[in-house]
Amino acid sequence: MKNFVIGIDVGGTNIKIGLVTEQGRIAARRHLPTFPYTKDKNMLIQAIAQECLSLLKVRHLDIDQVLGVGIGLPGLVNTQKGVVHSLTNIPGWKNIALKKIMEAKLKIPVFIDNDVNVMTLAEWKYGAGRRMRNMICITIGTGLGGGLIINDALYRGEGFAAGELGHVPLSEDGQRCNCGGWGCLETYVGNRYLNIRAKKIFKKDMALERITRQANQGDQRSAMFWKEVGEHIGNGLTGVVNVLNPSGIVIGGGIAQAHRHMFKVIQSTIKKRAMHVQGSMVKVFKSKLGSDAGVIGARVLVKEMLG
Amino acid sequence: MKNFVIGIDVGGTNIKIGLVTEQGRIAARRHLPTFPYTKDKNMLIQAIAQECLSLLKVRHLDIDQVLGVGIGLPGLVNTQKGVVHSLTNIPGWKNIALKKIMEAKLKIPVFIDNDVNVMTLAEWKYGAGRRMRNMICITIGTGLGGGLIINDALYRGEGFAAGELGHVPLSEDGQRCNCGGWGCLETYVGNRYLNIRAKKIFKKDMALERITRQANQGDQRSAMFWKEVGEHIGNGLTGVVNVLNPSGIVIGGGIAQAHRHMFKVIQSTIKKRAMHVQGSMVKVFKSKLGSDAGVIGARVLVKEMLG
Repeated sequence: MKNFVIGIDVGGTNIKIGLVTEQGRIAARRHLPTFPYTKDKNMLIQAIAQECLSLLKVRHLDIDQVLGVGIGLPGLVNTQKGVVHSLTNIPGWKNIALKKIMEAKLKIPVFIDNDVNVMTLAEWKYGAGRRMRNMICITIGTGLGGGLIINDALYRGEGFAAGELGHVPLSEDGQRCNCGGWGCLETYVGNRYLNIRAKKIFKKDMALERITRQANQGDQRSAMFWKEVGEHIGNGLTGVVNVLNPSGIVIGGGIAQAHRHMFKVIQSTIKKRAMHVQGSMVKVFKSKLGSDAGVIGARVLVKEMLG
Repeated sequence: MKNFVIGIDVGGTNIKIGLVTEQGRIAARRHLPTFPYTKDKNMLIQAIAQECLSLLKVRHLDIDQVLGVGIGLPGLVNTQKGVVHSLTNIPGWKNIALKKIMEAKLKIPVFIDNDVNVMTLAEWKYGAGRRMRNMICITIGTGLGGGLIINDALYRGEGFAAGELGHVPLSEDGQRCNCGGWGCLETYVGNRYLNIRAKKIFKKDMALERITRQANQGDQRSAMFWKEVGEHIGNGLTGVVNVLNPSGIVIGGGIAQAHRHMFKVIQSTIKKRAMHVQGSMVKVFKSKLGSDAGVIGARVLVKEMLG
């Protein structure tokens, strides 16, 4: 019986590989550091393929007990054609037909997508967004990424670039952003900007984790720091909530894990500022699957694409 | 043969009724002023039903030559249940089962929707958005309304309130908006706000039409006035373009009709500010069906709902 899916989450630091069950659980897992392979895409592809096969071997599984392989990648991916157009922080990936290359190596169906899309699929089917027909998923870390579930399906956009919630402007002017625009939400709440903001407020370098600890211990200035971040996120999401009228927003990523008290501010900012219907029906949730979402969602991707 | 659809566009000033052909043309039409009926919803419903029947009579058509009736209304409409929750500028409409009431009177299927959604359906099937799988439609007048075509279907949102592009914030602070929020795009480009802005710039009351005429004649200050409006609209749409990655934006409504030179500024602002993929693939179009869109789109609504 074909019951398993191999899920692969390619990140800038680590590559996670897991055997995902029908229930959305990870039955076995592997890790690879990304660093040794960033210079040679063929080596990276070969290493992933080998890990997949060795993962199956250890579990005494045949490749024909696997439905397919799903891969999430940090960049622009054409899921229909199975082509990676570009990756963030991993150079050399320009229009690579990864689906075809992997299928030649593994002899089973391979599907690829943007990593935040895969995370969104996971939270929607197995996580905090279960049974929601219309939801937004965001992940906050170095950048702010997003995915959209619309009418019970992942929406990828005309050019597979939809969901860029970090690049909603908060102002008509504002700071230059990596994306080429300015005033984007990411320039208010991305890690790099938060570190600068922290240095300004605390007059020295301060790890974000430490600010959270201090906030938890009652330090007012630290609590205010996170409240401000929550307000920016709420302001950025208000327009999206008014336009998409979703029933939920699922928030994951490094910052979201650590700073649960930001969530109330995000929810209350949206409630105050969004239109009545939209604001009253949208709820903010913490992601349930955490850093496993990228592996688990691969199962949903494979099931979607196999139809 | 059931070839016709009766389309009805209920506006704050006029009610337009038309017999819409398979080709999306209006074969016969009627107008009713809204004003005499704003106080009594039953009178309004009765008047519309009568006009429908008399329109058929004049054209020597039987009611069974009509596929159905589509009605667009300026407010919050549950298309699934056929209930009007509320109307803007027409009081007394609270949870009215208009579909059921009309069907009892006309004995054919009746479907209802928000008026901007109906306009969006028209431009998508018969107008400027033909063959687009993913597009945004906006109409600029007293307010700024919007509709979304996503994966080849109108997207209505969890509570039938999606598409509110006039209520994308342009700033974290900003003026109070009718919607209860603040800093919304509508508070920069809605008619009321443009009139105030015009008075400030020209130091007297100035009709928007006159500013356009002057701009056309080469008056710099008038041209700047519209350029500024175009920039606000472009800034407001940038976030939506980054999030939805559509292939087109169709712009209609009073202001759009008159001020074609605004379009270039809207397009160039989005191109400058949006992300590379999203900005390079989105194009701005003038609506093709103008004030007929609300009647013509009813045909698309009826066809969609009959399945």
